[in-house]
Parts: sequence; C-alpha cells; structure tokens
Amino acid sequence: MIAVDAHGADAGVEVVIQGADSSGVPVHVFGPPLTAIGNEDDPALAARSRAGASIVKAARAVADGEADALVSAGPTGATLAAAVLHIKRIRGVHRPAVAALVPIPGGTPTLLLDAGANVEVRPEHLVQFAYMGATFMEAVHGVANPRVGLLSNGEEPKKGTEDVVAAHARLADGPLNFVGNVEGSDVTKGVADVIVTDGFTGNVALKLMEGTASTVTGAIRDAIKSNPLSAVGGLLIRGRVAKLRERIDPNATGGAILLGVRKPVVIAHGKSSAEGIANAIRLAQRAVDEQMVEKTAARLEAAGVLRSVPAASVAQPDD
Amino acid sequence: MIAVDAHGADAGVEVVIQGADSSGVPVHVFGPPLTAIGNEDDPALAARSRAGASIVKAARAVADGEADALVSAGPTGATLAAAVLHIKRIRGVHRPAVAALVPIPGGTPTLLLDAGANVEVRPEHLVQFAYMGATFMEAVHGVANPRVGLLSNGEEPKKGTEDVVAAHARLADGPLNFVGNVEGSDVTKGVADVIVTDGFTGNVALKLMEGTASTVTGAIRDAIKSNPLSAVGGLLIRGRVAKLRERIDPNATGGAILLGVRKPVVIAHGKSSAEGIANAIRLAQRAVDEQMVEKTAARLEAAGVLRSVPAASVAQPDD
Repeated sequence: MIAVDAHGADAGVEVVIQGADSSGVPVHVFGPPLTAIGNEDDPALAARSRAGASIVKAARAVADGEADALVSAGPTGATLAAAVLHIKRIRGVHRPAVAALVPIPGGTPTLLLDAGANVEVRPEHLVQFAYMGATFMEAVHGVANPRVGLLSNGEEPKKGTEDVVAAHARLADGPLNFVGNVEGSDVTKGVADVIVTDGFTGNVALKLMEGTASTVTGAIRDAIKSNPLSAVGGLLIRGRVAKLRERIDPNATGGAILLGVRKPVVIAHGKSSAEGIANAIRLAQRAVDEQMVEKTAARLEAAGVLRSVPAASVAQPDD
Repeated sequence: MIAVDAHGADAGVEVVIQGADSSGVPVHVFGPPLTAIGNEDDPALAARSRAGASIVKAARAVADGEADALVSAGPTGATLAAAVLHIKRIRGVHRPAVAALVPIPGGTPTLLLDAGANVEVRPEHLVQFAYMGATFMEAVHGVANPRVGLLSNGEEPKKGTEDVVAAHARLADGPLNFVGNVEGSDVTKGVADVIVTDGFTGNVALKLMEGTASTVTGAIRDAIKSNPLSAVGGLLIRGRVAKLRERIDPNATGGAILLGVRKPVVIAHGKSSAEGIANAIRLAQRAVDEQMVEKTAARLEAAGVLRSVPAASVAQPDD
C-alpha cells in the first residue's frame, strides 16, 4: 500500500485523488488539514512543528509500517524533511539524495543525482550516490550493469573540484560500471545511465535543461509563426512535435525519487497531471516490488562504502 | 593593434588568417612554430616550457606593449595560462575569470562567468566576478546599469552553498544592480545581464545549455523527418529556423573574454569560422577602445573589493 500526500500538486487535491484512483495500485491518501507546508526557511522545522500536515501523516504511516512507500507532489524540502525525520536513512547512508530522470530523446532516461537535497557534499557522499543511483536503474528500470558517470568540467580524471577528483578515484577503483567524468554537453546524449553530482550543481543542471529546452522550443515556435509560409509548415509538423513532447513529458517518469531512505519515496512534480500522479504511485509500487531499498543497502554494504559508525540520530543528515 | 594566435582553430590557420584579414582591425598574427599547445595536464607548465609557441609569442607581444589585446581560438587552458603568466592580473584581482555570452532569443545576450577558469572559488572571488562582468557589459556591450544575478539552487538569499550565500550578502550590500539569486531555469530567459558562478558550475552550465539546445533541435528534426507530411512542413520552416540559428550563432558573439587581466584577452571558439575569428578580433578592439580594463580596475577599487595585499607574484593565481 502506498501512502499519498493529498496536498502539494499545483492543480489541487482533486488531481491527486484522480491520479490515485487511476493508478491501479492500493493507496491511502492523507489529508487535510488544509495548512500545507510551503517552501519555508527551514523545512525540517516546518515538518516537525506541523505534525498534523498531510505529508507528515503520510510519512508516519510509512514509518509505522502501515504503508510501503510515500508519494508527494509537495515541495521537495518538506518531503525530504518528513522522510528523513520519520522514515529515516538506511543505516550507514550519509545523505539521502534526490534522483531525477532526464528524458533522452530516442533512448532510456538518464538518472541525475543529487538533484538538490545536499548543496555541499564530500567524496564519500558522491560515491554513495553512485551506488544508490545504479541500484535504482537496475532494480526499478531494468538497466543491466548501468553506466555511471561523474559530472565534471572535463573528461580527464583530474578535472573538477578536489572532491570530484577524489570521488572519481574511488569510483574508478570500485565495482561499478564507471564510465568516468561526463561533461555538461553529454548529459542529454545518453552517455551514462546514472550521472552523479552534488545537489547544488544537480539542481542548477536540471533546471537549466528544462529552461533551455523550453527557450529553444519557444524560439523555434516564434520563428515559425513570424512568416505565413513557415506558419503553414508549423501546422504540418504539429502532430509529430506533440508526439515528441509526449515522449519526453516529465509526467511520464512519475517524478524524482528520494534514494537512501528506508522506504521508497517519490517526489512527483508540482505540475503533475492526474496521469503524472498515477505514474508516481506506480513508480513507488515498482520500487517496493523490486525491493529497491533492500538491494541498495546490500549493494552499499558489499562495496564497503557505508559509513563505519552509524549515526546515533538520523534526524539531522549532518554527515 | 591586436595580437592574434594563428593556431588553435579547428578549421586551421587559414581560417584565422582569413578572419584577421576581414576584421577591418589592425592585427599581427603570431605563428608558427607548428607545435601547438594541447589540452595538457598542466597548461601553465606547457605555456612556460614551450616559450616559442604562437600563443606565448602573442601574449608576450601584448605584455611588451607591442599589441593592445590578445585573441586566440586555442584551448582555454593554454590561453589562460599564457595570459596570466605574461599579461598578468590587474593589481588586486584574486582570479581572472572566463566570461561567455549566452545568446538569448529575441534579447541581449547574458554574460555568464566564471565559465571554467576557477573550479573552486571563495565569496570574494564571486564578488569580483560580478564587478568585472558588469563593467564588461556596460563598457563593451553598452548595457546601462547591468542587472547582476548569482546562480544558485533557489531564489531566496539563503539558498546555495555557504560561499554563494556569503557572496549574495556582499553583493546585496554593494552598489551593483544586484537582482539576487538566479535559478537554472532562468538563465536562458534574459532575467539578468550578468550571471555569476564558480568555474565548475559555470562550465557545466554552459556546456549543458549547448548540449540541451542541440539535443532538442535534433529531436525535433528527427520527429519532423519521421513522417512525409511533417517532412513537407519541415521544408517550409527551414528558412526561418536557419535565421534563428544565425541569430543565436556562437560565432556572432566573438567568443569568451578573459576578465581580470591587464589587457583584453578574447578566447574564440575552437569551432570558429573566419567570421567568428573576425568578430573575436572586433570584440577585442572594442574592449580596447572602450577602456574596459581601466574601467574594471576603477570599478573594483571604487567598490572596495580589491584584495588588500597585492600578490608578489601573479604567475600563480593562488588566491
């Protein structure tokens, strides 16, 4: 059973309920109360102080074993805070990471993580992200032996910040199918199944891709409309372009997934349609069915990259 | 007179000479010898050890006052190393930065810096980049009171790494037209004239934009070709799309400019056409005519953001 946060979708509670109904997956939708958690200064504090909020109720249901996974279209910060506080990190995981699927035209999506949970990371965090991402792509997306790349400002192993260079060395020595550094120009080319970076760069990168794609398509649309002949041409290509848009629609992927916590947590896009919510719920169910969390823990342990002294408290992802 | 490095353009020396001829600007083209400086492990070392290389000759001519500015289509690392070693930093500048113009469809380009010279920076570096970029846009591109943004993972002043948050506070307190944090999704929207970031994020961002734009246009092209009717539509829109491509052609901007050194240094794209080289030379000449360097030094001093103890040696941009 999947716990679904009723609030957070831009289109309202109705869309979430409609998506839950059409998902074909057993769900429990949590909410009201009507005081939702916004993008506040301290989402962790907000999550704690408004224990009645729907995201907190949903996260608690998962923590208590009443549900197997969590889905929310609410603000990432609030979902992250509720998940870390209630569902908790996998033992030995430094930091949970938000992983987002980047659509690759004509190919399998590429998983980019961290997409914003941790603005500053250390090499051991990046290394864990790599294993967490690879396990997700293998277990949930059926990609055998996923290619893992490290986002940097050049292909050579020495390119990047000190932390990136250190992470490169550890990944190159490990058992993953590590393809080395990946440059910004390669992210949308499908050169890796998993691309690892810190949450600052990952957040900027993800939003840049969305922004650039929308700017480029907008500019092409404007150029086409600026002339009667090309406007006719625009009508003739409409169907095909719409199909392309469908194929790379963020709603199709179900949203981002929070990796490194003890149950699957899916962060649906705030702009999700009912179909987007349904896909997020199906993604959560698939992660449950494929035992993503158990496989992640086993893989991190087998690779010897778990933190040696487990945190006494997992509420604060301090390292 | 502009010193032009004959080597480095992918299309060969001929294209550089042709561009120099057609620029309408007095130039001296340096080269051979034929041993070019590649993307080596240590470009600074390479620049020193091959003192005969064309980039070094050209940089020395500028340092000796025989030429007023430097243009090269060679590897950024080699140009940067030659410029810092021979032309030297402006007194009190921590780090020179590579600034690249991002084409904005239907608007003035946005300057993104640092685009790759400094993978790790401190807040005072970001602050200097902001003043250097604003001076360039005002002096060379005629943008009055340029809007300066700071690239981050959220609009709120507290969003970002510790260094970004600290830079935000200093910029908000200063005399620049600071518009606050800019998110990845806004970079191509023309929300700022100057966007400041570290060289790691800037390099990834610039390449991501190029890669995403090429992936999106490629996917649209493929979608159009996949069906006879839309293929006809594709023929009808061709002219307009070609015009758009011209308008946002990187060759039109002349390339990236190295800010913070004592003479203008333009880093033309390796893929430059003769017209791209000519535009790079014209950009360098404009920076000379508009006294960009003098204005940059004056502005940094007036804002009180120069380093207090000038470096004894400027060969190593150590801080």
